[in-house]
Amino acid sequence: MSTWGDAINVSIFGESHGQAIGVVIAGLPAGEVISWPAVLSQMARRAPGQDPTATPRREADTPQLLAGSIPQGDDAFVTTGAPLAMAIHNTNTRSQDYGEKMTVPRPGHADYPAFVKHHGASDHRGGGHFSGRLTAPVVFAGAVCRQILARKDIAIAAHALQIGQAKDQPFPRCAIDAALMQDLSSRYFATIDPQAQNAMRQEIAVAHEQLDSIGGIIECACTGLPPGIAGEGIFGGIESALAPMIFAIPACKGLDFGAGFDVATLRGSQNNDAYFYDGDQVKSRTNHAGGSLGGISTGMPLLFRAAFKPTPSIAREQHSVDLQQHVDTTLNLRGRHDPCIIPRAIPVVEAMTAIAILNLLHVSNA
Amino acid sequence: MSTWGDAINVSIFGESHGQAIGVVIAGLPAGEVISWPAVLSQMARRAPGQDPTATPRREADTPQLLAGSIPQGDDAFVTTGAPLAMAIHNTNTRSQDYGEKMTVPRPGHADYPAFVKHHGASDHRGGGHFSGRLTAPVVFAGAVCRQILARKDIAIAAHALQIGQAKDQPFPRCAIDAALMQDLSSRYFATIDPQAQNAMRQEIAVAHEQLDSIGGIIECACTGLPPGIAGEGIFGGIESALAPMIFAIPACKGLDFGAGFDVATLRGSQNNDAYFYDGDQVKSRTNHAGGSLGGISTGMPLLFRAAFKPTPSIAREQHSVDLQQHVDTTLNLRGRHDPCIIPRAIPVVEAMTAIAILNLLHVSNA
Amino acid sequence: MSTWGDAINVSIFGESHGQAIGVVIAGLPAGEVISWPAVLSQMARRAPGQDPTATPRREADTPQLLAGSIPQGDDAFVTTGAPLAMAIHNTNTRSQDYGEKMTVPRPGHADYPAFVKHHGASDHRGGGHFSGRLTAPVVFAGAVCRQILARKDIAIAAHALQIGQAKDQPFPRCAIDAALMQDLSSRYFATIDPQAQNAMRQEIAVAHEQLDSIGGIIECACTGLPPGIAGEGIFGGIESALAPMIFAIPACKGLDFGAGFDVATLRGSQNNDAYFYDGDQVKSRTNHAGGSLGGISTGMPLLFRAAFKPTPSIAREQHSVDLQQHVDTTLNLRGRHDPCIIPRAIPVVEAMTAIAILNLLHVSNA
Amino acid sequence: MSTWGDAINVSIFGESHGQAIGVVIAGLPAGEVISWPAVLSQMARRAPGQDPTATPRREADTPQLLAGSIPQGDDAFVTTGAPLAMAIHNTNTRSQDYGEKMTVPRPGHADYPAFVKHHGASDHRGGGHFSGRLTAPVVFAGAVCRQILARKDIAIAAHALQIGQAKDQPFPRCAIDAALMQDLSSRYFATIDPQAQNAMRQEIAVAHEQLDSIGGIIECACTGLPPGIAGEGIFGGIESALAPMIFAIPACKGLDFGAGFDVATLRGSQNNDAYFYDGDQVKSRTNHAGGSLGGISTGMPLLFRAAFKPTPSIAREQHSVDLQQHVDTTLNLRGRHDPCIIPRAIPVVEAMTAIAILNLLHVSNA
Repeated sequence: MSTWGDAINVSIFGESHGQAIGVVIAGLPAGEVISWPAVLSQMARRAPGQDPTATPRREADTPQLLAGSIPQGDDAFVTTGAPLAMAIHNTNTRSQDYGEKMTVPRPGHADYPAFVKHHGASDHRGGGHFSGRLTAPVVFAGAVCRQILARKDIAIAAHALQIGQAKDQPFPRCAIDAALMQDLSSRYFATIDPQAQNAMRQEIAVAHEQLDSIGGIIECACTGLPPGIAGEGIFGGIESALAPMIFAIPACKGLDFGAGFDVATLRGSQNNDAYFYDGDQVKSRTNHAGGSLGGISTGMPLLFRAAFKPTPSIAREQHSVDLQQHVDTTLNLRGRHDPCIIPRAIPVVEAMTAIAILNLLHVSNA
Repeated sequence: MSTWGDAINVSIFGESHGQAIGVVIAGLPAGEVISWPAVLSQMARRAPGQDPTATPRREADTPQLLAGSIPQGDDAFVTTGAPLAMAIHNTNTRSQDYGEKMTVPRPGHADYPAFVKHHGASDHRGGGHFSGRLTAPVVFAGAVCRQILARKDIAIAAHALQIGQAKDQPFPRCAIDAALMQDLSSRYFATIDPQAQNAMRQEIAVAHEQLDSIGGIIECACTGLPPGIAGEGIFGGIESALAPMIFAIPACKGLDFGAGFDVATLRGSQNNDAYFYDGDQVKSRTNHAGGSLGGISTGMPLLFRAAFKPTPSIAREQHSVDLQQHVDTTLNLRGRHDPCIIPRAIPVVEAMTAIAILNLLHVSNA
Repeated sequence: MSTWGDAINVSIFGESHGQAIGVVIAGLPAGEVISWPAVLSQMARRAPGQDPTATPRREADTPQLLAGSIPQGDDAFVTTGAPLAMAIHNTNTRSQDYGEKMTVPRPGHADYPAFVKHHGASDHRGGGHFSGRLTAPVVFAGAVCRQILARKDIAIAAHALQIGQAKDQPFPRCAIDAALMQDLSSRYFATIDPQAQNAMRQEIAVAHEQLDSIGGIIECACTGLPPGIAGEGIFGGIESALAPMIFAIPACKGLDFGAGFDVATLRGSQNNDAYFYDGDQVKSRTNHAGGSLGGISTGMPLLFRAAFKPTPSIAREQHSVDLQQHVDTTLNLRGRHDPCIIPRAIPVVEAMTAIAILNLLHVSNA
Repeated sequence: MSTWGDAINVSIFGESHGQAIGVVIAGLPAGEVISWPAVLSQMARRAPGQDPTATPRREADTPQLLAGSIPQGDDAFVTTGAPLAMAIHNTNTRSQDYGEKMTVPRPGHADYPAFVKHHGASDHRGGGHFSGRLTAPVVFAGAVCRQILARKDIAIAAHALQIGQAKDQPFPRCAIDAALMQDLSSRYFATIDPQAQNAMRQEIAVAHEQLDSIGGIIECACTGLPPGIAGEGIFGGIESALAPMIFAIPACKGLDFGAGFDVATLRGSQNNDAYFYDGDQVKSRTNHAGGSLGGISTGMPLLFRAAFKPTPSIAREQHSVDLQQHVDTTLNLRGRHDPCIIPRAIPVVEAMTAIAILNLLHVSNA
C-alpha cells in the first residue's frame, strides 16, 4: 500500500512529473508544536541541485500545508489531531507531454515491471510514482515525527558509511554522543570522519566523469529509545517495523541490524552482548544486537545499515527492448541524474526511521 | 502483531513450554487439496534432533488440524475457505514449573527486553513466544501455501550459503533449474555444492566442541513469479512484503536482495540488468536486481540472502545481571541447544517466503 | 483511522476552515477512464446552497487533481495505478481567526469530546475534521469508484425514505429497474414518489421556520452485485465492510439491512427468502435478507437504510457549559446551517457504498 | 477477515462440525489475572441446552488454553503478553459424514452464497464457519477483555429489549446503576423488567409450537468510558469500531446508537443533549447521542441496539432449489434449533463490545 502504519499512518502520493507530490499523516498527537525551520532544514538536506554530487535539477520543493494544523506565529504550526496533509506542487519539470507512451524501459528502473503491472497505464515520466522525488514528502513526515521524538529525548542520525571503496568509520556501538547525533542529522552528506567524505566525493566524481554512477551504504542510529519497545507478537518486532519502510526507499537493496551480515562468521561467545548494571540501568558492554533482541528494544542504540544501488540512470548506451515493436534495441538516456544517491538518501533513511519509531511508541503505548 | 498479511493472514501463537503452538491461516482459497506427506516432509526439515548439527531434543511436532479443512482420503485435506487452524501440543518439555521468575536474562536472547515490555509477566521458559520453536507453525503454513503456489508453477528453495568461513556457491542468477529447486527444497541442510556442506559441518562441529555456536547466511530463490506482481504504492513492494516476515524469524539480523550489499562498490553500468527478448518474454542478461525493480517482480528469479546470528545459548559462562537483586552476576546455561541455527532455519525462510508470495499474488489479483 | 480499506484505501483529510480538504485513494486499478462531468455531477448533488432545504453557504468545491492520473481530452482522466490524490481548496470561510479557543461546546456536535481527546488543540472552527464538509472528498472518491463499478454493471442509488413524518415508498425488494437506479443517482434530493418529496420539503420548511432542524432516513440499493462476494471470515461480511463507512458519515446514528429492525416482530417463516430458479440464476421470491446472508452477497439487490439525526446547529438558545470558566452557560449559534442533512447526505451514502463495494470486489478477487 | 482489531486483535476459527472452534487474541496486556469462574459463567450464558427457549443440543464447550497464559492457582490464569489462544474441541456433533455435498441450500442461511463464494468447497454441515457456534470463542475473548475493562471501572451489560411484540423497558439513558449492570451481565436471558421476560418467553413458546422462530432486539450499555475516547480520523469513530463486530454476529441485521432510528422524527431542539457541570464533570441532561458525538465518547453511557432476525432453521417445509439438479424443490429441516436467538446472543453482543472497547482504549493510548 501507499499507506503504512497502524498508529502513525502515512499515505504518500505523487508522481515525478504529475501536478503534486505529498503526504497525509494520520494519528499524530494533537497539540504538538512543529518548527518550520526545522522541517525545511531537513527537506533541504534531501533537495537536489545543492552540490556537485547531485543532479543540477532544482526544485522549489516548498511544502504547502493542506490540513491538520494551525499556524503558530510565522515559524511554527501546531497539530490539531486531524490528519496532517501536505502537498508540494511540481514546478520544474521539463516534459509536459502526456502523449508519449513508454516504448523502451530503462534498465534498473521500475519502468518495465510497472508497465506490466499497470497494463501500460502508469505515468512513466521521470519514474512516475517510483521516482526518488517521492521521498520529499517522506522527509517532511519524518521531520514532523522527529520533533515529537526529540521531546522524548529520542534522536535519529545517519551518515554515509561507504561509497564505492571509500569508507567512513562506523558509529560507536554503545554510547553515541548527543552532539554527534545533532551534528550528523543537520548536515548534507554527513560522514563521521571528514576525510571519508573527501574520498567518497572522489569516487562519485570519477563515476560521473565516466558517465556512470556508484552505490553505497548508509548507517543509521537511533538513541534514547527505552528498553521494552516493540509491537506485538512475532511479526511485531522493531526490525519488522523498520524493514518495510527502509526497503520502500527507492534503490534500497539491503538492510542489516547491529553486527548484521558479519554474524555469519561470528561465534555466539563473540556476538552475545554481556549485560551489566550502569547505576540503575541495565546495559550491555557490546552492541552486536544493534539495540534489538527478539525484535524488542534493549535500551542500547538502535543501529542498522542500508545498501543503495548505483543510480540506474546513466549517460551510457544500454541494451534494452522496444515493448511496442517487440525487438531488442539500445537506449541513450539524457537528462539530469544523481551519479550517487547516497548523500540525498541519508535524510530519507532518518525520516523513515522517525516515522517507524514514533509509530512503534504509539503501538507500545509508550 | 502476531498476525500478518492483508489477503493471506497468519496468526502465530504459542510459547516454547506452553500447552501448544500453532497457527490460524485466514484467506486461503477454498477447495485446495493439500498433501499431508508434503506438509510433514517440510516440517521434518525443521524438526530438531535429526542430525549432529542440531539439538538432540526430539519433538513429536505432530500438527493437529483444528478447523478449515475436510479430510480427503488418508493423505490429504481440502481447504474449506474458512480459516485453517492447526495446533501442535507440547509433549517433550522438561520444565513444567511455573513458579520460577526469570532473574538472570540470557545474553543475546529476548529475555531482558521482553521482561521490561511485559513487566515481568512473560513466560520466559525456553524463550517463550520468542522461541525458535514458534517456527514450526510457520513451516506448516508455508507448506500449505507452497502447494498452492506449485499449481501456478511457482517454486521456492533455499540453501546454506555460508556458515563461518565455509561457503556454498550461490544460485545461478538468471536461470535456475527446476530440478535444483525441487532437490534443495526437499532436503535437510541443503547446499548446492555437497563439498560446501562438509566444510560447514566442520565449522559447526568445532564451534560445538568449543562450547560455542556459529552464525551463517541462507540464500533463497523464488522462480516462476510472473512480471508485474506487487502490492500498491511505495510501501507495497516485494521487498517490503518479504522483509517483515523474514526479520520475524528469530536470530535474523540481515536481508538483502539480488546484488545486495555488494551494490556499494558497483557502478550503474555493472549493476543495471540489460533487457532482451527471449522469444516473447522480456528477460535480462544479468539479475543484480534479484527479480525486483521498484518493488515489482521483473519475471526473473527472486533472489535474496538472510543472515542469522550464532545461537545465543552457549554452554560457556557469560556475564549478565540479576534483575531481582540488581547486581551483576554470571550465568551458566545448561540444556540442549543447536550450535548453529542455519540448517533448521532453511525451511523456515522458504515458508515465510511462500506465505508472503501467496499473499502478494492475492493482493495483486494475479 | 482517517484511512479505510485493505484493497481500495481512502485517506480523507481536511478541516472545515482549514486550507483544503481532500482524499488520497490507493489501490485503484490502472487505466480506468474517469469522466469529469460524471464526477462533478455527483459532487453537485452534495454541494450546499442549491436549494431552500440547504444552507445558503456556497462553496466552489472544485476538485483539483494532485496525483495518480493523466488527462484524457478535456473531460476525462485516466488512472495510472499510483494513488489518486485530490484537494479542494477552501475559499468561502468567514472566520480566519486562529486565536479563538473554543469555550462553549455546541450540544450535539463533536466539540466537547474532541476538545477532551485532543486536549484543546483541535481546530474546532466549523466542526473541524468532523465537519460535514469532509464528505465532499468522499463523494469525489465514490464518483470515481462508481464509474469503475458501472463497467461491471453494478449500480448504486439512494433516496430520502423519511424526513420527520413524511415518508417515501421503499425500493422494490427483488427487482429494481435500471432506469430508476439511474434516475435516483442523478438527482438532488431524490425520492421515488415525487409527492413524498413535497411532504418532506414541507417538514423541513416548518422546522426551519421554527429555528429548528429535522432528521431522517436514507435508503440505499446496490444492484448487479454477483452472488458470493464477501471478505474473509466472520469479520469479512458485507455488513461489516459497509457499516464502518456508513457510520463514518457525520450524524449517522443507525443502519439496518433488508428487513432490518422489523425482524424483531417477524417469524422465520416470514423472514426466510425462498429460493427458485429464474432460468440459470438462483433468486429469491422475497429479499428480507437485503442481499446478504452470512455476510456474503446473494445476488439479490443489496438494500440498507441509514438514519441521520437532525442537524445539531440550530438557531435557538441552548444550554451548555463554559469549558474555560467551568460554569454552566447558554449558547446562541449564528451562521448558515442546513435544517435537514438528508438531501445532501444521499450522494454521500452512495459514495461510501461505492468505495466499500469496489474494495470488496478487489478483496474477493472478483 | 477472520481477524479484527489493530491493537487487540482476535482471530476466530472453527466450523460447526469441525474438530474445534477457538480464538487467538493478540495484543492483550501482560500480567492480567483472569478469573476462570468469571470466564466460564459468561460462556454458560451463551451455552445451548439450558432452557426451553433454546436448542436441547448440549455442548461441553470447555475452553482449553493453548498459549499465552500461565495458571495462577486453580481458578485463574495470567496473561503473558504473547497471543492468548484457546480451543474448544467439538464433541457432540451428530454428523461426521464428510461425503455429502450440499444440494439444497437452506433459506435464510449462508449456505447458497457460501457455496458460490467457495465453489462448493465450504464445510456446510451445521452452517460451517457461519454457525452461531462460532460465537463461543467470541464470548471467551469478551470474558477476558471485560475483566481487564472492569479494572478501569468500565462495565458492559445487555438485555433483551424486544422479542416479537413483547418489550422490555430500555436502559435509563443518563445514569445506569452499577448493580443493574452487574445483575444483567451475570444472568441468562436478562431483562430489566422481569414481567417482560415472561411475555418474551410466551412469544418464543408460541413460535416454537407453530414450528416457527421469532426475532428480536438486544440493547447494550457500556458505562465508565471516559470522554474523549476514539480512534483517529473520520473512520476511527466508536460506531465504526463497534459496527463491524456487532454485524459479525450471525443474524444481526440492524444497529443503532442512542436515539437511533427514532432520530428520523426528532427535531434538533429535542435531540441535542444539553451540557451541564455535575461537579467537575461535564454531563448532559439527556443522552440521545448514546454516548458518542463525532464518533468520540462523551463520558455518558454508550448505548446501542442490535436487531437479530428469527432463526432461519425452522421445522416447516420451505421452498428452495437443488443446486446439483438445477431444479426447484422443497426442504424439510430436522434437528435441534433455537426458536429465538436473542437469549443466547445477549452475552455475544456484550463480548463483541468488550473486545471493541478494549481495542479502542489501546488505540487511544487511554
